[in-house]
Amino acid sequence: MARFSPDDHRFMQRAIHLAERALYTTSPNPRVGCVIVNAGQIVGEGYHRRAGEGHAEVNALAEAGEQANGATCYVTLEPCSHHGRTGPCAEALVHAGVTEVVVAMVDPNPLVSGQGIGLLEASGIRVRYGLMEAQAEGLNPGFIKRMQSGMPLVRLKMAASLDGRTALSNGKSQWITGAAARADVQHWRARSCAIVTGSGTALADDPALNVRPEQLTQDYPLPVRQPVRVVVDGRKQISPALKMFQLPGELWIARKAADVEAPWQENVTMLAIPELEGKLDLRNLMRQLASKEINEVWVEAGGRLAGALLNAGLVDELILYLAPKLMGNSAQGLFNLTEFDDMAQLPELDWQDIRQVGDDLRIVATFKPKLDD
Amino acid sequence: MARFSPDDHRFMQRAIHLAERALYTTSPNPRVGCVIVNAGQIVGEGYHRRAGEGHAEVNALAEAGEQANGATCYVTLEPCSHHGRTGPCAEALVHAGVTEVVVAMVDPNPLVSGQGIGLLEASGIRVRYGLMEAQAEGLNPGFIKRMQSGMPLVRLKMAASLDGRTALSNGKSQWITGAAARADVQHWRARSCAIVTGSGTALADDPALNVRPEQLTQDYPLPVRQPVRVVVDGRKQISPALKMFQLPGELWIARKAADVEAPWQENVTMLAIPELEGKLDLRNLMRQLASKEINEVWVEAGGRLAGALLNAGLVDELILYLAPKLMGNSAQGLFNLTEFDDMAQLPELDWQDIRQVGDDLRIVATFKPKLDD
Repeated sequence: MARFSPDDHRFMQRAIHLAERALYTTSPNPRVGCVIVNAGQIVGEGYHRRAGEGHAEVNALAEAGEQANGATCYVTLEPCSHHGRTGPCAEALVHAGVTEVVVAMVDPNPLVSGQGIGLLEASGIRVRYGLMEAQAEGLNPGFIKRMQSGMPLVRLKMAASLDGRTALSNGKSQWITGAAARADVQHWRARSCAIVTGSGTALADDPALNVRPEQLTQDYPLPVRQPVRVVVDGRKQISPALKMFQLPGELWIARKAADVEAPWQENVTMLAIPELEGKLDLRNLMRQLASKEINEVWVEAGGRLAGALLNAGLVDELILYLAPKLMGNSAQGLFNLTEFDDMAQLPELDWQDIRQVGDDLRIVATFKPKLDD
Repeated sequence: MARFSPDDHRFMQRAIHLAERALYTTSPNPRVGCVIVNAGQIVGEGYHRRAGEGHAEVNALAEAGEQANGATCYVTLEPCSHHGRTGPCAEALVHAGVTEVVVAMVDPNPLVSGQGIGLLEASGIRVRYGLMEAQAEGLNPGFIKRMQSGMPLVRLKMAASLDGRTALSNGKSQWITGAAARADVQHWRARSCAIVTGSGTALADDPALNVRPEQLTQDYPLPVRQPVRVVVDGRKQISPALKMFQLPGELWIARKAADVEAPWQENVTMLAIPELEGKLDLRNLMRQLASKEINEVWVEAGGRLAGALLNAGLVDELILYLAPKLMGNSAQGLFNLTEFDDMAQLPELDWQDIRQVGDDLRIVATFKPKLDD
């Protein structure tokens, strides 16, 4: 006999769908959705929209009102048991008279995992968990990784011609990919907590690295949440004359400790990063980002920083846009990697998603763990 | 009112299916299938299997026998009206008493196109044509191009890492792609009339460049038809010590006229190619191949010959196998192209087919015509 019925799946699917509405807004909190069901009818729905606002369960209970009494609650993430920015959701469910809670995934934080379920069960509420767990995990890959490992999820975005070239020998690169691919990038930026680039790209392209909500196909609740922009500035080259400093949103500049200055303006923070072989220790940078509640990192960089991140094994996902063009061997290549002596040493990937975006091909692939990691 | 009924489509689809059986064998003749239908029933089927053997219509008529009288004939290519290796098929249809002929595509040879249909109609046979024309054209892209332009269809195959690299800096490249991709290559070789490589690849890899029927998933009628192997040897570097000279099948060596020698052995032919800017004129080579009844050319070469063919605008299709690996910028690139000054100059392609083959990605793309061509 299946532990979960078709109705269970239907209600949890709805909760996941609600959580997806918060894709762009909850950072640094996880995306969570919740459905309250009484006598087979949905009586309350909610999701956690923004850090500081109500949690999914609280919003769903508010909509259900008296009908939460005797109801079943479907929630994508184990209800919290701690007093954070809002009261503990597990207690709120108890007080509302919910008699059963179905959870998709338990809390990924090993320090509190299972405590919400324990509190519910201790109050006599029936709890079942593990329904559509993989889909629920897919809502919050960065949050889960940060909770479990103290590191953020790192996505590396590159755009190249079909023969893997990013710019002509004279530096020209606008535009390799089409408008649809560039609009697609906006969606990845919008869901990220931080957008990372290198000083080389910052100086060469003077990019804005912000989210333009008018390019997003999904409704974006105002005000826009601008991801933190992080510039890897190991050679102390960045100055406040760049365009990104004129735009709203946080800017973090990662430098060697000796190069750290007093912040130039209110939205600038300097991060002191230890050195490793004369360069910034990128693993330390990522650990610092995680400690500052960065779940999902989106890297838009040139071949040098991209290669350094790959060499250090810090990239989880590659998002590669390939344009249907050839640039030839005189053009600039994708990744400055360590030189390999043997084919067995190459970094290997697993295809996750391959699709056409406008005229371009978008490849999403994850890196296989290295045996010596 | 539609000119063609669902039954018409069904019978023509069957004829196309029959023609596909000859994918590997008919060269230099086109792949043709034929179905004879009497009173709604298929009474005869045939396809042209091998040059020198019976044409599709003749084989189908033989199976139909007396039942061809009063029947309708579905054939993928306009019946021939000339006395070639076999008698004209149009006449055979008339003699058999067929009363209607449905043709998918007319003969692509401008010198005889329409003559078979004319002969049939002059004999009082009703002829309709254009049914599933695109599918019928897809059977014989090289034959059609050769008939219409005097040039073969050229497919360029490359295998690279996801970042567009074909070999490590130390030359190692075995194996970038997996066994499934290499078996897939066998199918492309088997359907081709000629396999072209450069002297650099011949000397570096000493490849066999032959068809190994045990790797083909489709039944291969024996004896195996080995495509002609063509080596572009503009610097007179090839010698009969190479492996390919020990294997059955024709070998054509393309050299500057001054470098042409008496053939070393029975299966070797020397082609004298004019020079263009100190190198072999590859367009002339392709024209010579077409004049020797080569329909489909399959190129397996290194970045130099591949680049030269692309620079000369001689490639129709790129078949690119991308392995889920990264090799980095120190590794060897795909194409030695002319250096471009502007993004608008880049060769552009149209995606045709993108699929996973084993662990690798296979991209088939065709080149857009250049405005100045």
